Amino acid sequence: MARRTDSRSRMIHAACELFRERGYYATAFSDVVEESGAPRGSIYFHFPGGKQELARETTARAADEIEDMVHQAASRAHDPVSLIQALAEIQVQRLEASGYCSGCAIATMVLELAPQDEELSAEFDKVFTRWRTALVGHLRSWGVGAQHAVALADLIMAVFEGALVLSRAARSSEPFWNTIKTLITTVGCLIAEPQQ
Amino acid sequence: MARRTDSRSRMIHAACELFRERGYYATAFSDVVEESGAPRGSIYFHFPGGKQELARETTARAADEIEDMVHQAASRAHDPVSLIQALAEIQVQRLEASGYCSGCAIATMVLELAPQDEELSAEFDKVFTRWRTALVGHLRSWGVGAQHAVALADLIMAVFEGALVLSRAARSSEPFWNTIKTLITTVGCLIAEPQQ
Repeated sequence: MARRTDSRSRMIHAACELFRERGYYATAFSDVVEESGAPRGSIYFHFPGGKQELARETTARAADEIEDMVHQAASRAHDPVSLIQALAEIQVQRLEASGYCSGCAIATMVLELAPQDEELSAEFDKVFTRWRTALVGHLRSWGVGAQHAVALADLIMAVFEGALVLSRAARSSEPFWNTIKTLITTVGCLIAEPQQ
Repeated sequence: MARRTDSRSRMIHAACELFRERGYYATAFSDVVEESGAPRGSIYFHFPGGKQELARETTARAADEIEDMVHQAASRAHDPVSLIQALAEIQVQRLEASGYCSGCAIATMVLELAPQDEELSAEFDKVFTRWRTALVGHLRSWGVGAQHAVALADLIMAVFEGALVLSRAARSSEPFWNTIKTLITTVGCLIAEPQQ
C-alpha cells in the first residue's frame, strides 16, 4: 500500500506544480504522469474520477501548503508586520526560483473554473477560508481585535494574489515588493481604527 | 472595409469575454466564431497569426477598456477614496451581472501564459503600466504626491485583482466589498505618510 500511496501523492504534487504554472486546461494527464514519474496508465487507477478528482485533491493539498506557509512565517514573526514580511519572503523566494512561473497554487484554476464548476468552486472557497482562519489565529494571538484581524486577513490574501498577477506579467518581483511595502505601511493605521 | 473591420472587432470582443470567463486554453477559435456571429472560416482571414494574434489584440482592447473604466470612475469622483468606490461599483456590477464569471480581462491569461509566452507577457505588462498611469494621473490631480500616487495605484491594482479571485471562488461580492472597504480605510493613512 505504501507504494500506491506514494505514487498517488507524487501525482498530486506534480499536478499542483503544473496547475500553478499554466492552469487546469493546459495540463494534460500525460504531463502529470511524466512530471511525477508514475507509470503510464496508472492515473485512472489512482484517480477514477478523472482530472476533476485530481483537481479536487490538488486543491486540498494547496490548502495544507498555504496553512503550512502561514504557520512557518508566523514562527519567525512577532507581530502583523513581521508576519506579512515573512510570508512575502517565502512567496518571493518561490516566485524567483521558478523563473516567475509559480504563483498561487489555486488562483489560475479559480479564474478558469469558478463559478462554472460548482464542486471545485466550493473547494477553492474552502482554501481561502482555511487561509483566512490561519492568518486570523496568529493576528489575534498578537492582540489584534477580531474584526480587524478578519479585515486584515482578507486584505493580505487579496494583495498577495493580486501582486502575484502583477509580478508574473512583469517577470520581476518588483511589483510584488512595492505592493507588500505599501500594505505594511497601512497595517498600523488599520489596527488603530476603532472597531464597530 | 467597414464590414471587415466590424467583423474583426466583434471577434475581439467575443474573445475578450471568453478569455475573461474561462481563460486562453479553454477558448477554442470555434467558440469565438460562434459567440461573435462571424462566418465560419473567417478567423484565419482576420487573424492570420492565429490564436496568439487574437490574444494580443484582446490584450490591447483590455487595456483600452481598463483605461476607460478608470476615467469613467474618476469622472464621478472627487478624491482617491471616491475613485476607489466608483471603480469598485463598476467592477461589482459587471461581476454580478455575469454570475461571478467575469472578472479581469487579462488576469486569467497572465496566470496561464506568463512568463512562458514572452511576447504576450510584454503585452500584459503594458496593460498594467497603462492602468497604473491612468490611476496616477487622477490621484496626482487631487494633490497626491508622486511617490504616494504610484504606491497607491499599485495597491489598488493588486487589491482589485486579488479581490476578484476571492469573489469568484466565493461566488459572492462579499469578499470583494470587504477588501475594498479595508483598502479605503487605509488610503488616508497612506497619503499622510512622509514621502522619502
